[in-house]
Amino acid sequence: MTIELANGEAQLAALAVLSQQTRELMDAVVLTDVDETEIAAVTAELVALTERLRAVRRDTALPHEFAPDGTFRHLGNAVTGACNPHALPLEVERSPEGGSRADVNFRPAHEGPPAGVHGGVSAMILDHLLGDAVAASGRGGVTGTLTIRYRQRVPYGERVVATANVTRSEGRKTWADGSIALPDGTPLVEATGLFVTPEMWMRPVEPGQQPAPVNGPPPTRGATPAQ
Amino acid sequence: MTIELANGEAQLAALAVLSQQTRELMDAVVLTDVDETEIAAVTAELVALTERLRAVRRDTALPHEFAPDGTFRHLGNAVTGACNPHALPLEVERSPEGGSRADVNFRPAHEGPPAGVHGGVSAMILDHLLGDAVAASGRGGVTGTLTIRYRQRVPYGERVVATANVTRSEGRKTWADGSIALPDGTPLVEATGLFVTPEMWMRPVEPGQQPAPVNGPPPTRGATPAQ
Repeated sequence: MTIELANGEAQLAALAVLSQQTRELMDAVVLTDVDETEIAAVTAELVALTERLRAVRRDTALPHEFAPDGTFRHLGNAVTGACNPHALPLEVERSPEGGSRADVNFRPAHEGPPAGVHGGVSAMILDHLLGDAVAASGRGGVTGTLTIRYRQRVPYGERVVATANVTRSEGRKTWADGSIALPDGTPLVEATGLFVTPEMWMRPVEPGQQPAPVNGPPPTRGATPAQ
Repeated sequence: MTIELANGEAQLAALAVLSQQTRELMDAVVLTDVDETEIAAVTAELVALTERLRAVRRDTALPHEFAPDGTFRHLGNAVTGACNPHALPLEVERSPEGGSRADVNFRPAHEGPPAGVHGGVSAMILDHLLGDAVAASGRGGVTGTLTIRYRQRVPYGERVVATANVTRSEGRKTWADGSIALPDGTPLVEATGLFVTPEMWMRPVEPGQQPAPVNGPPPTRGATPAQ
């Protein structure tokens, strides 16, 4: 079977592999104990590789866009982007019954407390997942307020589960709850968010117009469903 | 003048340079537009460099520890660690009058909304900075609750200013406020945090015992001053 890729898709597939390898490099840097001479030698080679990638460059990260299969994607996203080494990447699944979830494997590069995930990294993940749950409900919006409650240390190097669900909505406001928990359900970090749908997104669809995608138009500020 | 480095300090200095170069690689990956053949060639070389770093490795990120100059540091920290490529790194300054601040230059790898910083990344930074302000006040504690209010899109590629200050304390509880703002003071994201000092940290120092460091003993859970 031949997989036909749209123009540019082969480049994006290669970029996803490069991004994953860059994540492995990041973890290797965090854990390495080779001596300073070897570290300096590797650094010099990295400088050269960085320059090769800079030979042709974009002005911004890869955009919010529709993939050839019609799904919405943001490959450059700092939390979910397959083509962004900063991203875990968070791989979000949407339940047919509503709500979003992701199995998460934090790594040594996410350390805050000894052998634990930085509380800010947990907040980052929950910000995104709650926004995704709101988007999945068809009520895209920008994050207004996010409250995080820390209950227990989040471990890295083992699977934890992040979930989020919409709890209620009222006018342009939508609330969502979420958590990061152990696979047995023990909550480690909990979150509540209030999301606001911009007024312009509430306009009825004109005849002949496409409705907005499930996760709304590209956001213009703050944390958003398509963040 | 010769700078004498304690055992291991030369390795750590080399690691900080490698970490910075890895951050530059991350941004080059996010922005590169070279073709898939070149991307694959660079990826293959990265695999080899990653393996070289893995030749000798630690089990965990660099620890929370006292530096030779007596300051407390966590070079492996996900937000502030000079030897962790995931970290900005956030370079926190403490004011003699109290409070913590940092000039922040977000990069394309931090993108959420188009040309803006991911709301989760802003939350991550504020979680750390509020914890630092609490630690600077001499009341180390673990984060209980953190609330983030998103007001305007945070730009990347230009300097913004993050600040945090303790607002009040009561028993083992300490509250702090903070924000990310434009250099002219326009607030973009605001945060309030409640921090709780573990009971065991409140015990009076026994004769002959060292007092706890300003930012408390290594944390055991959640986001903390030494996160």
